[in-house]
Amino acid sequence: MNETQRALLATLASGPVAGPEIAERLGVSRAAVWKQVETLREAGFEIEPTGEGYAVESVPEYGAAAVEFGLDAPFTVEYHDSLPSTNDRARELAAGGESDVVVLADEQTGGRGRLSREWRSPSGGVWLSLLVRPPVPPTQAPLFTLAAAVAVVRAAEAAGVDAGIKWPNDVVVRGDDGDRKLAGVLTEMEGEADRVSWLVIGVGVNANVDAEPLPDRATSLRTEVGDVDRRAFVQRLLEAFEDLRGDPASILDAWRAHAVTLGQRVRVETPGGVVEGEAVDVTSPGALVVATEDGERTVHAGDCEHLRPVDGRSGRV
Amino acid sequence: MNETQRALLATLASGPVAGPEIAERLGVSRAAVWKQVETLREAGFEIEPTGEGYAVESVPEYGAAAVEFGLDAPFTVEYHDSLPSTNDRARELAAGGESDVVVLADEQTGGRGRLSREWRSPSGGVWLSLLVRPPVPPTQAPLFTLAAAVAVVRAAEAAGVDAGIKWPNDVVVRGDDGDRKLAGVLTEMEGEADRVSWLVIGVGVNANVDAEPLPDRATSLRTEVGDVDRRAFVQRLLEAFEDLRGDPASILDAWRAHAVTLGQRVRVETPGGVVEGEAVDVTSPGALVVATEDGERTVHAGDCEHLRPVDGRSGRV
Repeated sequence: MNETQRALLATLASGPVAGPEIAERLGVSRAAVWKQVETLREAGFEIEPTGEGYAVESVPEYGAAAVEFGLDAPFTVEYHDSLPSTNDRARELAAGGESDVVVLADEQTGGRGRLSREWRSPSGGVWLSLLVRPPVPPTQAPLFTLAAAVAVVRAAEAAGVDAGIKWPNDVVVRGDDGDRKLAGVLTEMEGEADRVSWLVIGVGVNANVDAEPLPDRATSLRTEVGDVDRRAFVQRLLEAFEDLRGDPASILDAWRAHAVTLGQRVRVETPGGVVEGEAVDVTSPGALVVATEDGERTVHAGDCEHLRPVDGRSGRV
Repeated sequence: MNETQRALLATLASGPVAGPEIAERLGVSRAAVWKQVETLREAGFEIEPTGEGYAVESVPEYGAAAVEFGLDAPFTVEYHDSLPSTNDRARELAAGGESDVVVLADEQTGGRGRLSREWRSPSGGVWLSLLVRPPVPPTQAPLFTLAAAVAVVRAAEAAGVDAGIKWPNDVVVRGDDGDRKLAGVLTEMEGEADRVSWLVIGVGVNANVDAEPLPDRATSLRTEVGDVDRRAFVQRLLEAFEDLRGDPASILDAWRAHAVTLGQRVRVETPGGVVEGEAVDVTSPGALVVATEDGERTVHAGDCEHLRPVDGRSGRV
């Protein structure tokens, strides 16, 4: 989408506007307005002349312009039907100096999760990467991963799915037989010791996809409530993220409010060994505090497994 | 330096070895040994046949082979007479998948300090970048910046200069009229939230250079004790860094032992505002604890200025 199209959609967002007025507001000719209206129609927007002027009658189901239209957050969106990895594309944009860009794909052919694990990303999911440049040192970067997880939970709630967060960054739906993974977050960064240069926050949400071909213990929005409006889902996600990054001090409390890990018995595999005990808190910038038999341990990174008592013993959920 | 040259130097490091024995140990022909001996001679090594075999009579003053010869740390060294920036070159090597490489230059034409500040790097200094891949999350990366500062202090001590560390990463020489900057460290990194992909630790030491064209309040090894053996200086620096990264738990204490900041009144300009008070400690992974009038504040990044009482008031040193 070019700047004129973006401005045109912004102008039409609040209701019908007459052609001459659009041309004046945008500082372009009426012919240029007509040309951009045609381009937006080709992109799937229904834009019709009404008595009061041009009006957006309908918005395409998904895509860059669809997500940007009516989005209350300052991100530009780039959409691809298929990409190897939205994170890789966002890293390219980072190297090119861009910021506040969202890369969106209908499917990823080489999606990956944390620590180079495979992440299945079939058509119909929400696979996106946020490129941001927060003015913080790298030590604070984990906060933005937590913020992305909170944003996914809020978007899921708006879609009618009650989700929670498993430390550090899995979004899960709780069930009688344990938690099922709905979404994951993979953050990559570059920076100096003093400041982040860029963060690429990859978010993968099993949206309108069957849970069946996904890995064990996964679920999807389709499985939980049926297919959702991905455009609205991404907009809510981006708006929630925007709210949180504008107020970083609020992120930890927001995370705690949705955490399913706190209060649970956990087993965390860290680079320094296994830590087992009760997860009692999360501290800045995103470390898990575990009450073990030997006292409290603070864990900065690792794989976290929730344990639960089974017949008086601990067993894996 | 190629692998055969490296192996040849390693073989000769402990004393003279006869040609046939060298060929056998290295698994190459005697002609190949001869050819590599010639290449090392061209690089400045004096290698002479003695009664007991080939012996290294003298080592070039500086360069890749000179630093690697006798180095007790597992780094390969790449040397350039002139580079725009050793950090940029190390980042290229990082992108190519390399690790445990040291990039060394006699001068940098586009050297930079923290936060894109200019860093003058004339011929005669020690300008180097360490490319390492420690198995830690990015939140732990600042520890390695502290380790590099400690390593510089130890190398300076071995050269007869008593230096200290000003938080977070300046190496200074104390004087009656305040501290003078001897060296700085600029760390860059890339990684996921869970783990560092690479760290490039740039170290700039004003070694055999005049302090005069350097910025105000700078000093050099030449100014303090006269010109030093840069080869030995870099070797001591790399060996000290190697010791510290092999025992990360020891880094903070080593840093504290050399800190000139602790116990001082400081003024730190942080992204979140100015923090003023007494610097009382450094906590993992490298944050400064400042006792202010409103209680203790922990500062993760910022510019630190040492203040001192002047006629009962605080004044800049």
